[in-house]
Amino acid sequence: MNKVKAYLNCLPREQAEKLWWDKLIKADYFSNLPVEEVIISESLGRVTAQCVYARQSVPHYNGSAMDGIAVRAQDTFGAAETLPKKLLVLKAGQAFKEGGCYVVDTGDLLPTGTNAVIMIENVNLSGGYAEITEASAPWQHVRVIGEDIVANEMVLPEHHVITPVDIAALLAAGLDRVAVIAKPKVTVIPTGSELVASHRELKPGAILDVNSYMLCAAVTSWGGAPERHEIVYDDYEKIKEAIAASLPFSDMILINAGTSAGTEDFTADALAELGEVLVHGVAIKPGKPVVLAICQGKPVIGIPGYPVSAMLTAELFVRNILFARQKLPQLAEETVSATVSKPVYSNIGTEEYIRVSLGEVHGKLVAAPLGRGAGLISSLTKAQGMLIIDETKDGLSAGSVAEVALFGRQQASKNILSVGSHDLALEILGVFLRRQADLALSCANVGSMGGIMAIRNNEAHMAGIHMLDENTGEFNITYVNRYLQDNPAWRLVHLAMREQGLMVMPGNPKRIKGLSDLVRPDVEYVNRQRGAGTRMLLDYQLKKMNLESCKIAGYEKEVGTHMAVAATIAGGIADTGMGIRAAATALGLDFIPVAQERYDLILNFSPEDERLALLIQILQYEEFQQQVERLGGYDLKDAGKLLALSQ
Amino acid sequence: MNKVKAYLNCLPREQAEKLWWDKLIKADYFSNLPVEEVIISESLGRVTAQCVYARQSVPHYNGSAMDGIAVRAQDTFGAAETLPKKLLVLKAGQAFKEGGCYVVDTGDLLPTGTNAVIMIENVNLSGGYAEITEASAPWQHVRVIGEDIVANEMVLPEHHVITPVDIAALLAAGLDRVAVIAKPKVTVIPTGSELVASHRELKPGAILDVNSYMLCAAVTSWGGAPERHEIVYDDYEKIKEAIAASLPFSDMILINAGTSAGTEDFTADALAELGEVLVHGVAIKPGKPVVLAICQGKPVIGIPGYPVSAMLTAELFVRNILFARQKLPQLAEETVSATVSKPVYSNIGTEEYIRVSLGEVHGKLVAAPLGRGAGLISSLTKAQGMLIIDETKDGLSAGSVAEVALFGRQQASKNILSVGSHDLALEILGVFLRRQADLALSCANVGSMGGIMAIRNNEAHMAGIHMLDENTGEFNITYVNRYLQDNPAWRLVHLAMREQGLMVMPGNPKRIKGLSDLVRPDVEYVNRQRGAGTRMLLDYQLKKMNLESCKIAGYEKEVGTHMAVAATIAGGIADTGMGIRAAATALGLDFIPVAQERYDLILNFSPEDERLALLIQILQYEEFQQQVERLGGYDLKDAGKLLALSQ
Repeated sequence: MNKVKAYLNCLPREQAEKLWWDKLIKADYFSNLPVEEVIISESLGRVTAQCVYARQSVPHYNGSAMDGIAVRAQDTFGAAETLPKKLLVLKAGQAFKEGGCYVVDTGDLLPTGTNAVIMIENVNLSGGYAEITEASAPWQHVRVIGEDIVANEMVLPEHHVITPVDIAALLAAGLDRVAVIAKPKVTVIPTGSELVASHRELKPGAILDVNSYMLCAAVTSWGGAPERHEIVYDDYEKIKEAIAASLPFSDMILINAGTSAGTEDFTADALAELGEVLVHGVAIKPGKPVVLAICQGKPVIGIPGYPVSAMLTAELFVRNILFARQKLPQLAEETVSATVSKPVYSNIGTEEYIRVSLGEVHGKLVAAPLGRGAGLISSLTKAQGMLIIDETKDGLSAGSVAEVALFGRQQASKNILSVGSHDLALEILGVFLRRQADLALSCANVGSMGGIMAIRNNEAHMAGIHMLDENTGEFNITYVNRYLQDNPAWRLVHLAMREQGLMVMPGNPKRIKGLSDLVRPDVEYVNRQRGAGTRMLLDYQLKKMNLESCKIAGYEKEVGTHMAVAATIAGGIADTGMGIRAAATALGLDFIPVAQERYDLILNFSPEDERLALLIQILQYEEFQQQVERLGGYDLKDAGKLLALSQ
Repeated sequence: MNKVKAYLNCLPREQAEKLWWDKLIKADYFSNLPVEEVIISESLGRVTAQCVYARQSVPHYNGSAMDGIAVRAQDTFGAAETLPKKLLVLKAGQAFKEGGCYVVDTGDLLPTGTNAVIMIENVNLSGGYAEITEASAPWQHVRVIGEDIVANEMVLPEHHVITPVDIAALLAAGLDRVAVIAKPKVTVIPTGSELVASHRELKPGAILDVNSYMLCAAVTSWGGAPERHEIVYDDYEKIKEAIAASLPFSDMILINAGTSAGTEDFTADALAELGEVLVHGVAIKPGKPVVLAICQGKPVIGIPGYPVSAMLTAELFVRNILFARQKLPQLAEETVSATVSKPVYSNIGTEEYIRVSLGEVHGKLVAAPLGRGAGLISSLTKAQGMLIIDETKDGLSAGSVAEVALFGRQQASKNILSVGSHDLALEILGVFLRRQADLALSCANVGSMGGIMAIRNNEAHMAGIHMLDENTGEFNITYVNRYLQDNPAWRLVHLAMREQGLMVMPGNPKRIKGLSDLVRPDVEYVNRQRGAGTRMLLDYQLKKMNLESCKIAGYEKEVGTHMAVAATIAGGIADTGMGIRAAATALGLDFIPVAQERYDLILNFSPEDERLALLIQILQYEEFQQQVERLGGYDLKDAGKLLALSQ
């Protein structure tokens, strides 16, 4: 291999975009587009390649607009109530003669010689004559040729997206086919020696290729025709060959990934050999190592490998190009101002993109940043908008107001933001909220204390908490009264009693019997983060038993949810961890009960908010309660009970 | 045939809708929906039938998040710049022993026994040892199993529209297929003995079936799977059979038309026999004779026959039902307030729907009502929004402000409203505007005087005029100075000199030589409407020649455009009419020149408006001028010249 020196610079996004567009325009990429003819009934959503002109007029003949008689207007002049006129009824096909008329139905061709229609209601037909009592103006009740569309008139302009009514117009205008801009063919090439195409082939160290399918779907949703290439391993020549072989039949190529400047990153070099690399590296995060190149006049984009980076770079550098290539209108981005619910850090010199959930809390729109790892697919699926921090800023403090670009048409009022302790019952609650009122529940799992703080700052609608007061042995009430005393409208409502305990591998290979085993040197623990109710419960129990947490191996290893604790154990990275029985059940782990605790919800709505009533109602549904109890370790007999409320 | 009595009542829309929804809900039409499994890469845009849970965790193993060495954290404790530690480098596969480490790349499985990774940059590898100078926290640089998605966690809720990123999440979660709601199968049955399926079969009296294709496309755009039935003639038994045969494999049936109460209208009767007719007739215009029925638990809708009525009733009674049947969010209708540019009459007791063009003129949003005939397909394609006049009102006066429902995402600032005299050059101007700046030109053809009045009321951006001052023999300037003296910002710009004359059938069968032949009794004339420049020119010439207009047969027959004059002659309904040469050329008519006239544009923009500059620029483009001159009868050598402007 003849490795060209990889270069990875860091162009500001706007500069990279300008370079990219200018070069593509110069390469005539957006003109002389390939055209195809499609039959009209299959042209929905396609873009006209040129102006379309009518081949026939609509209506295509002069027809009667009414049931009645067709007359020559001047023969009716003088007719009046007091002076009826009689017209001779002629047979269809019979030549017209002065003073004659024909019986016609709506839509019938106006017989030659006639130029008006009198409604049947105003005619007295008898003895072969039609008696009329008023004169008719010429052209009365006649639908003339071309009244709607005239032959040779423009039916649709060029570069118009064809709608259902346009299909009617095209057909009516006598057309069979319409010339539309061909869908851009986009080849997506997944590269990487670690990639496998099916989850059945997954082994540790292997990565499932999900990006190529995601990118193909994105291309489809942007009007293109994607083609997924098979996986190409990290081999300079193979990657170059795959690109070269795809170029002739592609309008655009996306290579995913190999876009960094590492020893196994061949994309930029291969593109430099096949064409011109305009940009390698943009000052954005995620998505920095994007490659923008033009080969044989066609854009070839090296898309970074992490899913969040891949999606973002496609949105920035592929979407608009595809729209322009189809003469589709560019997406007008809708933005809203929202209060950021937690501090967001950013590097000066880099434009950072942070996906957020959105909700309207007491009239204030709140943006809750989601996990920021470039590998977190879940942050893609949960996001409702994107916060963009420009390169001059080092971040946003909690409570500051920022612009959020919306994904699609979001109705923030339809989102309920739940911030607090994680519980599987919340997923079920979410299902019921959606079913009952089309509400979406977004959960940020930050532990009980984080939930209380979010409510205090009016940055969440709802928080699940389970916080033990070491002094009283009571759950939750002490805390909400202490921290929410200045908040105007909240209530604490019971959800469930639940069992907390130690999760262990099936069969309990380390023979763990209770908390006292945690200090054994051969037992590796996985903990919850500070402020999590489960951790508070553990600390309380350890204190009661006089066990020192510093003696527990893994006490510092924090994960954010019960399910993550369970997954860590199921994956063999820890022997045990505390959590709820339902999480153990879900992953097939054994469970050693330690304590029962009360899990309650703080509901932060004004009393008249319909969503409040609905939430309490759902908690009391028998069907909801049964579904939660089926998870294991739950008792919902008092669900929905009011425990405390704002003063 | 056993004709059931046809009934046609006139329910208010809201009442009809409520009846319709209540009954469908009661019939369980929106629950227990048919489900199908699709492979994930083909699930874009589909709606999940139930909640989707992960089959595997993501990541599915504990992996290194960096290139570096995998260590046991406690072996690194105490390492510092001043006190480096050496760890023995173990071979991959070799069992871990205390104080050992493994070289790992990003993504590699964390070897058993290790629980942290130290970045390669911070390691000095030599002689089989790795020297480190700082301690590592447990789990540092480790991407743990389930960090993104935990097995059994909900990946997507039920009734969620699948996006490209969701496809990535579903695949990553180890799924192959996803259960989605089946697309509702909608059979569209065109009925009518006058219908033909192809423009090749068109004869006078026949109507091309365009509605069924339009309705099928609408169903597609609303997520359904349409099936077009072949045309069924007006025969009670045949119509009933077609419906009955379609019911078993349809989720919904649309019958178009036969919905009125005439002798050939069988839809309501057939439906009454096959099921229950809930509504026959709604107090809306257009669209009154709609039939809403339920047969075998399925909605069957009788859609009226005129295209505008058909589309409106489908939008009102089909679209939302289809969305609900797929659990898609109902379309949130966007409305804007706009000034109505001409009076709109309406009947009390009927809700009227009027399609409009929209444009922003001097900061005021203007809605220009389009032709209101229920048969006018062109009013469907040209509309950007809909004005709804409720049943308590008898109309809107010109200049009143009303709510307009928008079709799609309209950018009113992208529309240029042209109201005035019709000229084919405007179509070409529209093409250039769209190409240069993505602007859409909507033309309302109301003649020159109508154009001046629209500018005077700030209800149009542009008006084409050609008005002769009988006293001075000058065109246009007198009129703009007289009528627009109080308007703040307009200019009169020259477009073209054009030839006006008499259009006649090819070969000139009536041997018309000039205006003096118009008073011949065997010559039938077709005129333009009052206020049209062409009519003013005719009247001026007639006066000069001392010809009396009352002696001209057809002088009262008014049509609205040059093309309509040409079509009327080409269709044989008149022998001649005055108009521009280009219209005659377009329809292959012969042309007898009468006079040359000046056609100018009033441009009603503030001087700094970019659209003004662009318009003047286009008028001066050689390519534009050549395209117009190619129409025949035009001279554009002075196009773009300023003739007059506001004081």
